[in-house]
Amino acid sequence: MRFLRTFIKFGNLLNRALVQEVPQRSMACSRFEYVKSFEQDDSILPNVWIVIRIDGKKFHKFSKAHDFEKPNDENALNVMNAAATTVMQEFRDIVLAYGQSDEYSFVFRKETTAFKRRSAKLLTYVTSLFSTSYVMQWSKWMNIPLAYAPCFDGRVVLYPSEQNLRDYLSWRQADVHVNNLYNTAFWKLVLERGLTNQQAEEKLRGTFSADKNELLFQEFGINYNTLPAMYRKGTILLRKRVTVGDKSRQAVVPLHEDLISSQFWKEHTEILGKYVPGTFNAPQGLPRLVELQLNAKRVDNEAEEPQNLAGIS
Amino acid sequence: MRFLRTFIKFGNLLNRALVQEVPQRSMACSRFEYVKSFEQDDSILPNVWIVIRIDGKKFHKFSKAHDFEKPNDENALNVMNAAATTVMQEFRDIVLAYGQSDEYSFVFRKETTAFKRRSAKLLTYVTSLFSTSYVMQWSKWMNIPLAYAPCFDGRVVLYPSEQNLRDYLSWRQADVHVNNLYNTAFWKLVLERGLTNQQAEEKLRGTFSADKNELLFQEFGINYNTLPAMYRKGTILLRKRVTVGDKSRQAVVPLHEDLISSQFWKEHTEILGKYVPGTFNAPQGLPRLVELQLNAKRVDNEAEEPQNLAGIS
Amino acid sequence: MRFLRTFIKFGNLLNRALVQEVPQRSMACSRFEYVKSFEQDDSILPNVWIVIRIDGKKFHKFSKAHDFEKPNDENALNVMNAAATTVMQEFRDIVLAYGQSDEYSFVFRKETTAFKRRSAKLLTYVTSLFSTSYVMQWSKWMNIPLAYAPCFDGRVVLYPSEQNLRDYLSWRQADVHVNNLYNTAFWKLVLERGLTNQQAEEKLRGTFSADKNELLFQEFGINYNTLPAMYRKGTILLRKRVTVGDKSRQAVVPLHEDLISSQFWKEHTEILGKYVPGTFNAPQGLPRLVELQLNAKRVDNEAEEPQNLAGIS
Amino acid sequence: MRFLRTFIKFGNLLNRALVQEVPQRSMACSRFEYVKSFEQDDSILPNVWIVIRIDGKKFHKFSKAHDFEKPNDENALNVMNAAATTVMQEFRDIVLAYGQSDEYSFVFRKETTAFKRRSAKLLTYVTSLFSTSYVMQWSKWMNIPLAYAPCFDGRVVLYPSEQNLRDYLSWRQADVHVNNLYNTAFWKLVLERGLTNQQAEEKLRGTFSADKNELLFQEFGINYNTLPAMYRKGTILLRKRVTVGDKSRQAVVPLHEDLISSQFWKEHTEILGKYVPGTFNAPQGLPRLVELQLNAKRVDNEAEEPQNLAGIS
Repeated sequence: MRFLRTFIKFGNLLNRALVQEVPQRSMACSRFEYVKSFEQDDSILPNVWIVIRIDGKKFHKFSKAHDFEKPNDENALNVMNAAATTVMQEFRDIVLAYGQSDEYSFVFRKETTAFKRRSAKLLTYVTSLFSTSYVMQWSKWMNIPLAYAPCFDGRVVLYPSEQNLRDYLSWRQADVHVNNLYNTAFWKLVLERGLTNQQAEEKLRGTFSADKNELLFQEFGINYNTLPAMYRKGTILLRKRVTVGDKSRQAVVPLHEDLISSQFWKEHTEILGKYVPGTFNAPQGLPRLVELQLNAKRVDNEAEEPQNLAGIS
Repeated sequence: MRFLRTFIKFGNLLNRALVQEVPQRSMACSRFEYVKSFEQDDSILPNVWIVIRIDGKKFHKFSKAHDFEKPNDENALNVMNAAATTVMQEFRDIVLAYGQSDEYSFVFRKETTAFKRRSAKLLTYVTSLFSTSYVMQWSKWMNIPLAYAPCFDGRVVLYPSEQNLRDYLSWRQADVHVNNLYNTAFWKLVLERGLTNQQAEEKLRGTFSADKNELLFQEFGINYNTLPAMYRKGTILLRKRVTVGDKSRQAVVPLHEDLISSQFWKEHTEILGKYVPGTFNAPQGLPRLVELQLNAKRVDNEAEEPQNLAGIS
Repeated sequence: MRFLRTFIKFGNLLNRALVQEVPQRSMACSRFEYVKSFEQDDSILPNVWIVIRIDGKKFHKFSKAHDFEKPNDENALNVMNAAATTVMQEFRDIVLAYGQSDEYSFVFRKETTAFKRRSAKLLTYVTSLFSTSYVMQWSKWMNIPLAYAPCFDGRVVLYPSEQNLRDYLSWRQADVHVNNLYNTAFWKLVLERGLTNQQAEEKLRGTFSADKNELLFQEFGINYNTLPAMYRKGTILLRKRVTVGDKSRQAVVPLHEDLISSQFWKEHTEILGKYVPGTFNAPQGLPRLVELQLNAKRVDNEAEEPQNLAGIS
Repeated sequence: MRFLRTFIKFGNLLNRALVQEVPQRSMACSRFEYVKSFEQDDSILPNVWIVIRIDGKKFHKFSKAHDFEKPNDENALNVMNAAATTVMQEFRDIVLAYGQSDEYSFVFRKETTAFKRRSAKLLTYVTSLFSTSYVMQWSKWMNIPLAYAPCFDGRVVLYPSEQNLRDYLSWRQADVHVNNLYNTAFWKLVLERGLTNQQAEEKLRGTFSADKNELLFQEFGINYNTLPAMYRKGTILLRKRVTVGDKSRQAVVPLHEDLISSQFWKEHTEILGKYVPGTFNAPQGLPRLVELQLNAKRVDNEAEEPQNLAGIS
């Protein structure tokens, strides 16, 4: 009798031991699970700035399919800005984002340990969230429905020094200057002078910046430097304190400043090293991009109220 | 005199040549352009299978926020399937995709030279297009609006041999079996027996597959093997010839078969090596996923009619 | 009283525990040890053939400085072969080595887990041991002393399939054929016809293999195919059973066969998959390279006798 | 007539051009040459310090086989120093080397473009030349012949900032301090007190630096800080101007200073950024390591006299 009880007890123990040592899940999978070992480590070197740049795939065609205004479509640019803002809100270690045309660069602070600095994780989270946010923001800014799913590629580039990082951003801002000056002149010639694309291209071939400035001024009465800064400088997103009424809150704010000059880096010390947001002074009231955030945040807080949903998905 | 004119002409040619050889763009950017050299080559080894697997970020929370049915939400799974279908339509070198729960794997044929086999390009194009398509497909399948932008991570894994590739897919399909059997039993206990999550978990802890099959049959009269194949096997996407009326067209079709068995690989020879699509025999009529494609294709053809839009974006 | 002893004992235990948990070494280094985290994982993808190829640095100059015979110096090639033999004896997962001119390729079986498949470890161990063995073997084969330290570079190349691996080795053997035929003709023209280097080069420029074969036969009475196989085919090292007297032992043996033909792979099944050494049939007695091994092995065994040396280096 | 000759000449040129463009070599190899495409780019990120560290393989056994003096063998350390000196003479972009025990670290300046910053090239050249030089230097310092070929592994580690680099070197120097203090005490106990290895180990287990200093002083009358600096600090190799008689020449000189202190970096400004060698002040005459260099250089110059050797190796 006593023997039997011991036996039963032993059986229970054995059972429990078996269950704990050889869990059911791993049993079922064990024969194939070796394939996990083919995943390779892609951790990024510590102490370097991590830049992730996103580019629209075939956005020339995309802009035609959605009737973008030429040479710049303010609303289409704001869809980009709004999508990038969502990315910065989600990933707190992004200290700056810079966008122009169909591209956006995100700069992770060099000490970040987000996702253990795994390259593919950082790259795909940023690319995916930017992509889905782009689609979700679309109808808030555009009057035409999305004809098909847009697509962005992304890349990771590492910069060891502050100077390298600044030169990277300067490179992108110099790029927008060159392209936008050309495009502004090109579309004036096409839309207002009736030149064909090819004629406009030939007229501008080989000209210098000064030539194009002169052409705009002489033929169209346009002072290039007074055109909207967003078109000429692109959009810099920074985290700033924003004062609304008597409350002060943090938000991602758009700037259209010259980041090639050292003045920019003196004013926005939160980028390199300090990470303490400065204050945003909106000259002509808050941009809609910021207002949407402040409103959205309130909704967000509500969403975090306890919910009665439960279980495993 | 004639000499002079020749000289002037030559000067003009020289000038033009100089201008073309040192284009204005590169002049403007040259000081910063060195930063391009920090981009590193990430070409993938030739002659290996390239698998890209996408996973939903925090989809446990996402499924709660959107009231997914438990243990499986047929429509939510179809949003995944529809997004993956768009990816396969776009990237022709994907020979198979396999999805279950909030993940999808895409298999590029091992000879692919798409995007020069650059790892980040392949990874982000697939992740981005899947992500945007997920958002765009949402309202076609779900009654509740998207509460916020979903996000997916992606990774690249390389498999040198056919056996490795088959074992990878078997690993994912074994995973869905184990999880779905558990979840089916768990949610029966919670939703029909009124157990708390914790009680259900305790009841199932340490049980084997046979135990859970038995529990489903004895307590709920359910024969697990008769539940919908999509829940038990996941979804395999292949390119097949589909016959509609008297026309035969190519489409991406969903299968819910056992890919662990060698039978699967004998039937679908287009995956390993041949790449010539077989024929799709839909037992109960075409799935909606395929119908949507066939309709969409017609729209697509219309969209490719000549358009009067022009210029540089 | 008893209390006190317990207290003392406890104190000792505590002391020992503290000492073991915070060992002295890590204390001293902790401030700097973070730099270890900058080392990056370089494990090689599983299930691919790992080829490590070593090349002499500036061996054109090296061969002049040591008066190598032209176009081939048998002894100098044997220094290479002997060094490669040492590498194969040390690293048992190398299933084949192939050498020609100033280069040697080592093939690790695709399942190897040596040094956890860490790329830099495999690469540097092979390169370093080859390099030191080259210097140590030098005086056994050459009459002239080493004028300065030779140097070799090394690279890792991965091949997923048997066909890729065979094509790699065929590529190297085709290379030796082309080079050796050229060099043989070139040096005949220079050394026996008195042409300058430049004259010989001009004479051979643009000629085909058949032309050079003809030239050697017509002008010098040489049938190229009867020249020593080591010069024409390079040296293949395999692990084989060697019979000496009534004993049979394992050794690394040199072959000078055509490995482009499939015949080679049928005869030497130990390379792909089986890894069971075949038997070496030496047509004209054992090569000196093998004899040296058999002798050296006896010395080696003696060296493994217990020694009275002790301590920490 | 003149036309014809021009035509013929042109034909010849064309012919030559064709021959040069489709060289015979590539024809012969073309079928297999695709395997070259499996080599992967491994260029190192620009603007980071490149450290290559070499470690002796199984040098515990090696030191026993060659009867190294305990705890430090001055001559064996000088073989290491001499081999490292050869490496620094060959690769001019190495600005500092640091050695201790059986390891040596080489620091390439962060702007180096040597071998296009290809990781495997840099790694194997340094490892190979160090390895062959070790063997060639051996007999100049040691009385016992080399019993077998030594072997070293090597690794590449990247450091983005000066602080990271200094901390790396400090880490290695802290390591030599901890190890040497332990070994000094250990071997005193074994060699002079007759303890077994195990007894000595137990006696030292859990002791702090202060304890071991005290033990050396109390039991053996040794002030640890007066032991040779090479044993306590390791060896730093720098490029310096050395004055011999009335001539001043550049040489690689050994220092045994404290590089953890900032004083070291103030004195040797050639390491970080300037790369202009300072002057070497040898307190007790030139070390043999430097003398050997100065003599060797003269031989080197002679070797560069025109030689009558010619041809292709």
